[in-house]
Amino acid sequence: MVKIIGLDPGISKTGWAIISLNEKNNIEFLGGGTISTDGKLGTGERLHIIFEQLKKVISLYSPNEAAVEKIFVNKNPKSSLTLGYARGVVILALKITKLTMNEYDANYVKKSITGNGHADKDQIIFMVKQIVKNLSIKCHHVADALAVAICHAYTKGSCFVE
Amino acid sequence: MVKIIGLDPGISKTGWAIISLNEKNNIEFLGGGTISTDGKLGTGERLHIIFEQLKKVISLYSPNEAAVEKIFVNKNPKSSLTLGYARGVVILALKITKLTMNEYDANYVKKSITGNGHADKDQIIFMVKQIVKNLSIKCHHVADALAVAICHAYTKGSCFVE
Repeated sequence: MVKIIGLDPGISKTGWAIISLNEKNNIEFLGGGTISTDGKLGTGERLHIIFEQLKKVISLYSPNEAAVEKIFVNKNPKSSLTLGYARGVVILALKITKLTMNEYDANYVKKSITGNGHADKDQIIFMVKQIVKNLSIKCHHVADALAVAICHAYTKGSCFVE
Repeated sequence: MVKIIGLDPGISKTGWAIISLNEKNNIEFLGGGTISTDGKLGTGERLHIIFEQLKKVISLYSPNEAAVEKIFVNKNPKSSLTLGYARGVVILALKITKLTMNEYDANYVKKSITGNGHADKDQIIFMVKQIVKNLSIKCHHVADALAVAICHAYTKGSCFVE
């Protein structure tokens, strides 16, 4: 059995989701959530919260592999910079906890989950719920994190939905 | 006496410089260098090196205050993103070591050191050597780190060159 953490990094909200993949290629959802940071806090404080909370999640679930969506490079350089802060800290936390980061293009993730590289957020949530039964997810950050974890399971684990 | 660390973050080279400022407003250069990371390494490994080396420098010199140049937001969003990674990790290291990050506009730093907000790198190195005696600096990353540390000393320490 392999445990995969999927991540959707951001300075305000970093979505995370943990799945397990067994020898029969069954996917089970083990947990997920959002690390939120208050915009009133300083950047250092926000990055510290992301770093510490993510290390706690990793320590709690002990995933073996990590998957992150390749970044959407924003046209606004300032947004790219802020996203870079959060993503840099997430990459560091994965490195420190000895997890290799596997990156996937957003379109590849969408296509592997829904069959459509341009699927919208609702389609992602709908399909993720088909793949992982009894799932109650409302936050798209968690759904995105779960989608990239499932995409990694499909890609690396030779796991295909029948 | 106050000890100030100045920083010029970057994924390839992060310049750092430590100065002390005494009650008579004399500035002394205590140490400086560059944290270099090989481009052949993965991003996680490079960020980990920056994070660990910077924490070592801070542990060695125990600065009380930190100064960083406000980022030049590159027109290329991809460069901004990579710079964001390095800078995010530097901000995190400062937070973890309980140092407050003081940010200064590049033009303000140049003006406070040379009198000219558009001074070039050679002018910065020349003036920095006038302010801090017996200084041998060739690398502009260290000079930039030293310049922002001196700028912080001038601004916060009410320290003015006679």
